Amino acid sequence: MSDQDWDFAPRGTAQEIEEGAALSPRFDRDGLVTCVTTDAATGEVLMVAHMNAEALRRTIATGEAWYFSRSRQALWRKGESSGHTQRVTEMRVDCDQDAWWIRVVQAGPGACHTGRRSCFYRTVPLGQGGPVTLTLDEAGRVFDPDAVYPGKPA
Amino acid sequence: MSDQDWDFAPRGTAQEIEEGAALSPRFDRDGLVTCVTTDAATGEVLMVAHMNAEALRRTIATGEAWYFSRSRQALWRKGESSGHTQRVTEMRVDCDQDAWWIRVVQAGPGACHTGRRSCFYRTVPLGQGGPVTLTLDEAGRVFDPDAVYPGKPA
Repeated sequence: MSDQDWDFAPRGTAQEIEEGAALSPRFDRDGLVTCVTTDAATGEVLMVAHMNAEALRRTIATGEAWYFSRSRQALWRKGESSGHTQRVTEMRVDCDQDAWWIRVVQAGPGACHTGRRSCFYRTVPLGQGGPVTLTLDEAGRVFDPDAVYPGKPA
Repeated sequence: MSDQDWDFAPRGTAQEIEEGAALSPRFDRDGLVTCVTTDAATGEVLMVAHMNAEALRRTIATGEAWYFSRSRQALWRKGESSGHTQRVTEMRVDCDQDAWWIRVVQAGPGACHTGRRSCFYRTVPLGQGGPVTLTLDEAGRVFDPDAVYPGKPA
């Protein structure tokens, strides 16, 4: 891991952070940034997850998606137990460097631990008050999560 | 605001949260959820921001994007000072209900307070160690942020 053992630039002025060429992530108080993962082919948002410094470095170094699981408090190579890995074709960082966007080629049938291709399988109705009723996508499950994730999600 | 004065469902079991039709957001300790905003026409990720309960209710009720600004600690209708509003064409929620995805029709030239169409105007090189150098999109600025945001971002 010696080639991944480098540090990010310190946070500078707003001008440096927004217009500069140095990577200086704004980690939250838990040491995490937000990552949006979209399907490189369709543009669909597959998932939203978090990365810590090590997950960022490993994703950059390997071109494979690494995250940090808040529920398990552990570094997590996407697909390490399911085989549903993600090859990153492009990585972008936002203006204030607290959010990342990666486009990926998703291996296997899906990214979501519930068995769907995307975690965003329910729509919220718009233009109304009151408690709302979510609509589940008709496509539904594309794999059996109990078979793919025996005991734990990944 | 009486039609927006309703409450979300309490958090239930994982089965209820992931497979149910009730909206029961998992707000973080600051009372926020993450929102990914993509361009309804191109699929490009325009921004990642946060919503509190009131921003969620207002977005659902009005079909316009409302957020919560962490820096200003204030509810924020996107475009309220810039005119660059966002009309929401679809809203989705993820499996554990702590992330939202909205597709929007972006009014005006762009969504980013730096003057770009998207906040993600820099790419991160992949497949290497060491401190990395970001690449700025050639397209660059599409509007003058100082003229559009006199004093504060929106």
